[in-house]
Amino acid sequence: MNARIGIITVSDRASSGTYEDLSGPAIQATLKDFLSSPWEACYRLIPDEGPMIQAALKELCDREGCCLVLTTGGTGPSPRDVTPEATEAVCDKLMPGFGEQMRAVSLRYVATAILSRQTAGIRGQSLIINLPGKPKSIRECLEAVFPAVPYCVDLIGGPRLETHEAVIRAFRPKS
Amino acid sequence: MNARIGIITVSDRASSGTYEDLSGPAIQATLKDFLSSPWEACYRLIPDEGPMIQAALKELCDREGCCLVLTTGGTGPSPRDVTPEATEAVCDKLMPGFGEQMRAVSLRYVATAILSRQTAGIRGQSLIINLPGKPKSIRECLEAVFPAVPYCVDLIGGPRLETHEAVIRAFRPKS
Amino acid sequence: MNARIGIITVSDRASSGTYEDLSGPAIQATLKDFLSSPWEACYRLIPDEGPMIQAALKELCDREGCCLVLTTGGTGPSPRDVTPEATEAVCDKLMPGFGEQMRAVSLRYVATAILSRQTAGIRGQSLIINLPGKPKSIRECLEAVFPAVPYCVDLIGGPRLETHEAVIRAFRPKS
Repeated sequence: MNARIGIITVSDRASSGTYEDLSGPAIQATLKDFLSSPWEACYRLIPDEGPMIQAALKELCDREGCCLVLTTGGTGPSPRDVTPEATEAVCDKLMPGFGEQMRAVSLRYVATAILSRQTAGIRGQSLIINLPGKPKSIRECLEAVFPAVPYCVDLIGGPRLETHEAVIRAFRPKS
Repeated sequence: MNARIGIITVSDRASSGTYEDLSGPAIQATLKDFLSSPWEACYRLIPDEGPMIQAALKELCDREGCCLVLTTGGTGPSPRDVTPEATEAVCDKLMPGFGEQMRAVSLRYVATAILSRQTAGIRGQSLIINLPGKPKSIRECLEAVFPAVPYCVDLIGGPRLETHEAVIRAFRPKS
Repeated sequence: MNARIGIITVSDRASSGTYEDLSGPAIQATLKDFLSSPWEACYRLIPDEGPMIQAALKELCDREGCCLVLTTGGTGPSPRDVTPEATEAVCDKLMPGFGEQMRAVSLRYVATAILSRQTAGIRGQSLIINLPGKPKSIRECLEAVFPAVPYCVDLIGGPRLETHEAVIRAFRPKS
């Protein structure tokens, strides 16, 4: 059975058709480069509304059985940016190391990386990670944290994810 | 119209006159070096009392219209250090990247930088940032995070802050 | 009078006798290497149960008078990992810099360091720090944060801890 991975684009403008969603496809393309084991995407495109983000996260974790859910958008300081709060609201436990590491890596490229409020957490058997909105930053952030993702999914009872080692090397402790 | 910037010194001893407040003036001097666009300071000197810190933050954000409020003092582990809690209590959203980056930079100078509990957040159209108590550390921290401040103020609907580029370069994405 | 330092091993398997606790003794051995001033350990071995972790923390802080309490285990993403939540529940104030710095240092060794949810905080006159479960990582983390521990204990009214400077140098500001 394929691993299922949720991709949620959170954007008022993309969801209303003002522009095309490039961020969701950028996540999908990066995962395609990274993963060698079979997987399928569950994609959602929603506006920056807390209750809708929470509902989409719950649906992908609980009903669609996604072991990993990646969001893009809504992590900045603007009034409409509420993705981190929605993520925290649905998670059983928070994983502060993901946000710290993504900000540290993004800081190598732009000083405004500290404005990102990205977080991550566990809901049941799903790992949820907030990614930035920009396609270029999405790839940088996934490169920074993905080596730890397959082992995390192991620990919460998910399917075994394997990566193309030449592209990204998943780290699993030997013991 | 001038941008208004709040400066709050939180200190039992300075507010009781036991010693002179050097930290508030250090913030003001640093901002004078950094900013090329017109601005004026709204200064407050208060003791380490949670309700008074919250009241001062609300007043500077809501009534005085400060787009940026910088606090100094009260971020350590001592029982009287309650500035981060007061800040979190009045903010609509927290900005964890500021504290992370300021601690990371201060760590280059002193091992005790990890004891600082500095945070930052957004209240309405104001960005609030906790700075350390010592004048020398204030400048180091402002140098570390200020490049991201003008764009953050843009995003929350504040005035356009411009910097002296030879001293500190504000970063604004091109798009 | 000796300083008292609490060591709590949180592990279902070690506490049920499935294997021997190597982590608690690793903390004790590291402290023995680090500290030159007299101290004694208060050791507890308990399962990964939130209420039992909270009870052990309270007992060591409030009744045993430990100025420092170090936990090991229970900081990962697994359903049974609840040490950070138990720590936050009993602390008066949180010290985010400890977790950030321990994760940053552990990241130099393993990519999965971002999965650690280690935190730290103050309860009354006690500093509580979560350490990882593995003996090797325990030492790495203590080396990273211990230089700031004696000054933190000073600030919360604890005994003066002195270190073997050739092994680890405690940092205390001059003022």
